[in-house]
Amino acid sequence: MLVDVAFTIGDVPRPLPDGVHAVVIDVVRAMSVVAHALDAGADGVRPVADVEAARAAAAAHGALLGGERGGLPLDGFDLGNSPGDYDAARCADRPVVLTTSNGTRAVEAVAGAASIWGAALVNAEATVRGLLAARGDVAEPAERTGDDLVAGDVLLVCAGSDDRVAADDVAAAGCIAGSLALRGAARGTDAARTAVALFDTWKHDLIGLLRRSLSGRKLATIGLAADLEVCATVDTVPTPARLDDDGVFRARPLAR
Amino acid sequence: MLVDVAFTIGDVPRPLPDGVHAVVIDVVRAMSVVAHALDAGADGVRPVADVEAARAAAAAHGALLGGERGGLPLDGFDLGNSPGDYDAARCADRPVVLTTSNGTRAVEAVAGAASIWGAALVNAEATVRGLLAARGDVAEPAERTGDDLVAGDVLLVCAGSDDRVAADDVAAAGCIAGSLALRGAARGTDAARTAVALFDTWKHDLIGLLRRSLSGRKLATIGLAADLEVCATVDTVPTPARLDDDGVFRARPLAR
Repeated sequence: MLVDVAFTIGDVPRPLPDGVHAVVIDVVRAMSVVAHALDAGADGVRPVADVEAARAAAAAHGALLGGERGGLPLDGFDLGNSPGDYDAARCADRPVVLTTSNGTRAVEAVAGAASIWGAALVNAEATVRGLLAARGDVAEPAERTGDDLVAGDVLLVCAGSDDRVAADDVAAAGCIAGSLALRGAARGTDAARTAVALFDTWKHDLIGLLRRSLSGRKLATIGLAADLEVCATVDTVPTPARLDDDGVFRARPLAR
Repeated sequence: MLVDVAFTIGDVPRPLPDGVHAVVIDVVRAMSVVAHALDAGADGVRPVADVEAARAAAAAHGALLGGERGGLPLDGFDLGNSPGDYDAARCADRPVVLTTSNGTRAVEAVAGAASIWGAALVNAEATVRGLLAARGDVAEPAERTGDDLVAGDVLLVCAGSDDRVAADDVAAAGCIAGSLALRGAARGTDAARTAVALFDTWKHDLIGLLRRSLSGRKLATIGLAADLEVCATVDTVPTPARLDDDGVFRARPLAR
């Protein structure tokens, strides 16, 4: 299979080719929150792009309401967008509705994909395993010279930061693409190879990369730099987050 | 100053902010051809997007006509798109008109930039020096938190391969961005940092990167893989190529 990377939401091919599996990556911070909330036992996380729609969805589902605009918590919300706040005491067995600036838009951009996963550094390897299990055995096209995506291929979508490339998301894409390649499960496009190089260059100092990134500097200006420590850890969450047909991310336990 | 990278032509901000300097990068092969032709003494290279317009421009200027579609030379053209063919015997003191699939489109995308340069790996360092000389001393904005481009900043535009990311172009962008950073002349955006990581990862095996790239594999299928050897060499051309107001790339000798 081929693994490709969209560096921003604008790079996602429209329409998405049939049968392509999509991984939505937003390290700082939406998908780190999704992974942490599910790991803490939340009964699903529903991403909602619009703030008022998020309020309505939370009311309808009796859900915890979390999210941000400009990085900051919203009036009347239960939680902001700090992964560490989504712990078992707050989340266990509760449905969660989450609205964020970039991550929830990225989910909308891959509507109709064969499967949709929410990924960050914290659940990168779990995402790889979930993806491979969900994809199953799909025959490769007999003749394949170009790098156009076909059914069974994987597109890693970096949510980015307000339409700009975000290094934290590219690094996580590189982590996932590199793992797929090391397993012999995928060949990477030029974009995937570029993302792998970023991850490999910074894998021993991901916190350094995140602090230098646009997302990281924005968080520092609003006093939330501590969140970067959580977002920069790799594979602390053992289960992937898959978007079900009802638009809710749920933990998808892996076979041992 | 800030140095940013557009991974594809589609990533170029529209409109381009005033006063931004633009470097158009097409390693395989348009800008390698421009660099070689100017180094061989050509009296300027005029990039023209359309094949028929290229024929007309060549006739009007008594120019050598070169270019490709699908990588292959065009009927009635003097030269194809192989950098090695643009030697002194053919090019000295002759104007050249060049039409290619991606590189000439990238030039159009940055129309109106403060200066426009044509760059590849072969003239990367010359481009850095030309750019710094042309930019001169521009005051940094007093308050600068985000990564939006302002006057005096540099945008490296990867021409890509039919709207896909091309590793050869990203590597050259990384080479240029890294040199600007090492000189203490620029801070890189997240996109620039990503490109630098690709170049640094592959700098001792650029031919390996180009052979694996989409552009390189396309060339191999039409029997032109030998061109990659020329395109993968760094800094063999000592003068940068700047686009003059009349739409012609000319060599811009550097002060010693």
